[in-house]
Amino acid sequence: MTQTIIASATKELAIGFDQPFVMIGERINPTGRKLFSKELKERNYWRVKKEALAQVEAGAQMLDVNVGVPLADEPAIMGEVIPLIQSITDVPLCIDSSIIEALEAGLSVYKGRALVNSTTAEEEVMERVLPLVKKYDACVVAISNDDTGISEDPDVRFEVAKRIVNRASDYGIKPDAIVVDPLVMPIGAVGSAGTDVFKLLGRLKNELKVNTTCGASNVSFGLPNRHAINNAFLPMLAAAGMTSAIVNPLHEGLVQSVRAGDVLNGNDTNCKNWIKVNRAPAAEGADSNRGGRGGRRGRRRKAS
Amino acid sequence: MTQTIIASATKELAIGFDQPFVMIGERINPTGRKLFSKELKERNYWRVKKEALAQVEAGAQMLDVNVGVPLADEPAIMGEVIPLIQSITDVPLCIDSSIIEALEAGLSVYKGRALVNSTTAEEEVMERVLPLVKKYDACVVAISNDDTGISEDPDVRFEVAKRIVNRASDYGIKPDAIVVDPLVMPIGAVGSAGTDVFKLLGRLKNELKVNTTCGASNVSFGLPNRHAINNAFLPMLAAAGMTSAIVNPLHEGLVQSVRAGDVLNGNDTNCKNWIKVNRAPAAEGADSNRGGRGGRRGRRRKAS
Repeated sequence: MTQTIIASATKELAIGFDQPFVMIGERINPTGRKLFSKELKERNYWRVKKEALAQVEAGAQMLDVNVGVPLADEPAIMGEVIPLIQSITDVPLCIDSSIIEALEAGLSVYKGRALVNSTTAEEEVMERVLPLVKKYDACVVAISNDDTGISEDPDVRFEVAKRIVNRASDYGIKPDAIVVDPLVMPIGAVGSAGTDVFKLLGRLKNELKVNTTCGASNVSFGLPNRHAINNAFLPMLAAAGMTSAIVNPLHEGLVQSVRAGDVLNGNDTNCKNWIKVNRAPAAEGADSNRGGRGGRRGRRRKAS
Repeated sequence: MTQTIIASATKELAIGFDQPFVMIGERINPTGRKLFSKELKERNYWRVKKEALAQVEAGAQMLDVNVGVPLADEPAIMGEVIPLIQSITDVPLCIDSSIIEALEAGLSVYKGRALVNSTTAEEEVMERVLPLVKKYDACVVAISNDDTGISEDPDVRFEVAKRIVNRASDYGIKPDAIVVDPLVMPIGAVGSAGTDVFKLLGRLKNELKVNTTCGASNVSFGLPNRHAINNAFLPMLAAAGMTSAIVNPLHEGLVQSVRAGDVLNGNDTNCKNWIKVNRAPAAEGADSNRGGRGGRRGRRRKAS
């Protein structure tokens, strides 16, 4: 089964169907955050370090790094922030920008094999991003929209993804270096947003055989109690074939949901990681046999 | 799509693939509970009433009723408890016993259309339970084990389920009156327990076209932090084709997980029920637009 290998200088990470679901921490992103934007513009990176460490501590296996601030020198900032983060944590990074020069600035100082966020199927985007991906032997997130926009039809989005994979191979970039984002719609607006993406993921896994990612919290946009929707969604996505997601690992219950999904999808051998993370201290007694109506099944019927 | 209709005297409930996931409350069951067993034997039913009301209040759409106590007159107790519960709540009931006379005692006083828990594929069981189901025009839970026991092979369990459905039709019981239990194994012991049941549910939905149920908490038997595993499991089961489950609706987060699953599986039209249950009071302000990195997708790349 396809494995997509991302790496820092000292650590390799496999995104794959038989691997634990990869959580890419989203917190290093100034979008909508006035203070963070101001600090970045002033080259004050204390928050970058704080968010990096907090997310890794919470369980993120990768970090997304976006330093896009209007009117700032984004390439220069990216060129400083990437080595800074790599000096304090060994998790692999996802270099996230809509400015090609910032992508290049990050890639040129990145140690290891980065994930580039992102390309779409827009011609002018692919022809700028894909050569960069090839030059640095990176992996790339491929977003399933094109010049006509984002289709609500999941089969159209599949064809768009396929087009990117084919174009990438023209540049010598193999499918295992591509992580497709099938685009999660808000379910408050598109009632079939869940079932659509589950079906689409099946096709991406079985037909295109590519790993996948998404901004999972988009599904709950506009609804109350978003965390509960997002936390239920992640294991369902994993069961349907999603292999990573861009998330906030600090949200309550999120990392736990993802790990439970790993167990239930058979990607935590012998439940080893779950037991390690959840084991009650020995002195508190055996918690594991309480709860549930364990004896319900297998009850022999009394012949009477 | 197949709908299985259960009813009380005044309320109909449809279990179905395009319906909200049905939670069958499991708390009325004296198994492993000394005090509850003693009370039942003494015909003291205060706890029965309490558990019935608490589970309905928490969100259960049906109640399982098991009054099996060794050395007690189970048929007599069932004959008293069923009308008692029906006098205080209008949710349909699931009559649960391994003693045929207790099943009959419950069915003979039940008002509406009950769910009988259960038959297996054991010949001596089917030939006693199925005529009873037919006589009272009830529905029946069909457990996927036979005289040889419980197979670890999900394809074998499928064939066992098929055998029960075929035998039932000999008695004039149609597939829409059958709710198959595909048997959830403990994932701490059987690493493929999750993926096995997801596949099996697909076959039961698409090939046999039957509704399904299970004792969902069996999956976490033996593991620490069982609630987190169970809560992740339920929406995944629903996405795979499960349409009901026997659960404890009082467990923290369980009902919320199931309802989130309804939203994500497209079974809560316009998220109407979710919004109703989760809406923040107006005075607290608009909670719905916070959280998540909503603007991540659809960002136009700047041509530079």
